[in-house]
Amino acid sequence: MLLVEANKLYEGKAKKVYKTENPNEVIIYYKDDATAFNNLKKGQIHNKGILNSQITTLIYDYLKKNGVETHLVENLSERAQLCKKVEIIPLEVIVRNTLAGSTAKLFKMEEGQILENPIFEICYKKDELGDPMINDYHAVALGLATKDELENIYSQTKKINELLKDLFDKVGIELVDFKIEFGKDNEGNIILADEISPDCCRLWDKETRKKLDKDRFRRDLGDIEEAYQEVLARLNKIVG
Amino acid sequence: MLLVEANKLYEGKAKKVYKTENPNEVIIYYKDDATAFNNLKKGQIHNKGILNSQITTLIYDYLKKNGVETHLVENLSERAQLCKKVEIIPLEVIVRNTLAGSTAKLFKMEEGQILENPIFEICYKKDELGDPMINDYHAVALGLATKDELENIYSQTKKINELLKDLFDKVGIELVDFKIEFGKDNEGNIILADEISPDCCRLWDKETRKKLDKDRFRRDLGDIEEAYQEVLARLNKIVG
Ligand SMILES: Nc1ncnc2c1ncn2[C@@H]1O[C@H](COP(=O)(O)OP(=O)(O)OP(=O)(O)O)[C@@H](O)[C@H]1O
Ligand SMILES: Nc1ncnc2c1ncn2[C@@H]1O[C@H](COP(=O)(O)OP(=O)(O)OP(=O)(O)O)[C@@H](O)[C@H]1O
Ligand SMILES: [Mg+2]
Ligand SMILES: [Mg+2]
Repeated sequence: MLLVEANKLYEGKAKKVYKTENPNEVIIYYKDDATAFNNLKKGQIHNKGILNSQITTLIYDYLKKNGVETHLVENLSERAQLCKKVEIIPLEVIVRNTLAGSTAKLFKMEEGQILENPIFEICYKKDELGDPMINDYHAVALGLATKDELENIYSQTKKINELLKDLFDKVGIELVDFKIEFGKDNEGNIILADEISPDCCRLWDKETRKKLDKDRFRRDLGDIEEAYQEVLARLNKIVG
Repeated sequence: MLLVEANKLYEGKAKKVYKTENPNEVIIYYKDDATAFNNLKKGQIHNKGILNSQITTLIYDYLKKNGVETHLVENLSERAQLCKKVEIIPLEVIVRNTLAGSTAKLFKMEEGQILENPIFEICYKKDELGDPMINDYHAVALGLATKDELENIYSQTKKINELLKDLFDKVGIELVDFKIEFGKDNEGNIILADEISPDCCRLWDKETRKKLDKDRFRRDLGDIEEAYQEVLARLNKIVG
């Protein structure tokens, strides 16, 4: 089970995926590489891979305990997770509880407005197109998912949002927004895959609204590693 | 009931709206002005106002006969229609039966693919934002419409699409896509408003796929007035 080039199935911007002797499982290895703005900004965040792997593990364990199936089988090392191999559904599923980022920009509104009802968005995961926001009709027309599969995805996403809002709230963090990915396992079940970490969430300290996520990298705010550490430390206190 | 400056409520890119002595009615006057690409391209199409007013009238009469309520009360002259005054819901509701225009561009796909199921889209009518495509959650969060109102709008739009596809098919025209607007009348009913004309539809001759719509203006294809005339003449044969 060596993480050697010959076993590498895919290298993304933040992680590498390796095959294993079990055709239904992969190893996901978390790197320190950080990118933003569709790969225009590149850098490294010291220890990010270790921190994101641990944060994802804590969160996926918590979700599992609460009835949400995930791809995580077990942690193999600081940076490596054994996961169910899935066929990723090429959709980024986004939930917004507070207005920020691209949607604030789209509406030329200020960041920070807490939304009465969460906003759900889907983007077509396709680098050549710049991962554009689409709607359910597009997803079906493009053959990315059926209507029933979309309903399944939205319903799991709603549950995940409620659970995560609650979890982060308990550790003094506002879950502003997050992006998740789903995939189909070898039995055709749609399950949560990829990661949930400060790389793909906006997390603000509830009191000060200090950013504890990748926006510190995107916007050159400094203390990036410390912010990720802070998220891990707080989660560790209650679900560790 | 003079169409004088003092009575003008609004002048848009293609039409002017005048108040009348009845607070629940307006006069809509169709101009020959044509614009495209968010007002970057401007011009005039000879007789367009007359043609679009007549085409809209034929279509709205046909929809009314088939149980779809519209804002049209009666034709007053070649270019002027008496309409129920509505509070326009700031959404452009788009239906695509064949892939073309902005959505073909978004997916970097060729125009002309007939879709298995129609695609519905909504755009936020707001010039400063460039009328961006949004989803239902955005529309609700922005207070543009409630969930129930959106359902009402989609259900009317589906019916309108079926009726229009049928109508145009009968006159040898492929209804590629179209944009409509809805408004609330003084009793709070959501009804079809604005216009349905070659300015806001893509209409292709079924045999030759020759464009009979505003794309002739957008793409400098010439014979614009003739194309609009052709649409009117064909419709006149069966619903005139
Ligand atoms: N359980 C899984 N089985 C197979 N692939 C997975 C699984 N979980 C995540 N992936 C995929 O592995 C890759 C992880 O790499 P990374 O997050 O670095 O990708 P990325 O740079 O974001 O690129 P992209 O997501 O656009 O492919 C992603 O493509 C992700 O969709
Ligand atoms: N029954 C109605 N009552 C009130 N307003 C209407 C009615 N029907 C259409 N309108 C509105 O009248 C205006 C028509 O003008 P026109 O189509 O030229 O506008 P436009 O240049 O497209 O600009 P915009 O639609 O962005 O306001 C539009 O704003 C349209 O929404
Ligand atoms: Mg990724
Ligand atoms: Mg208009």
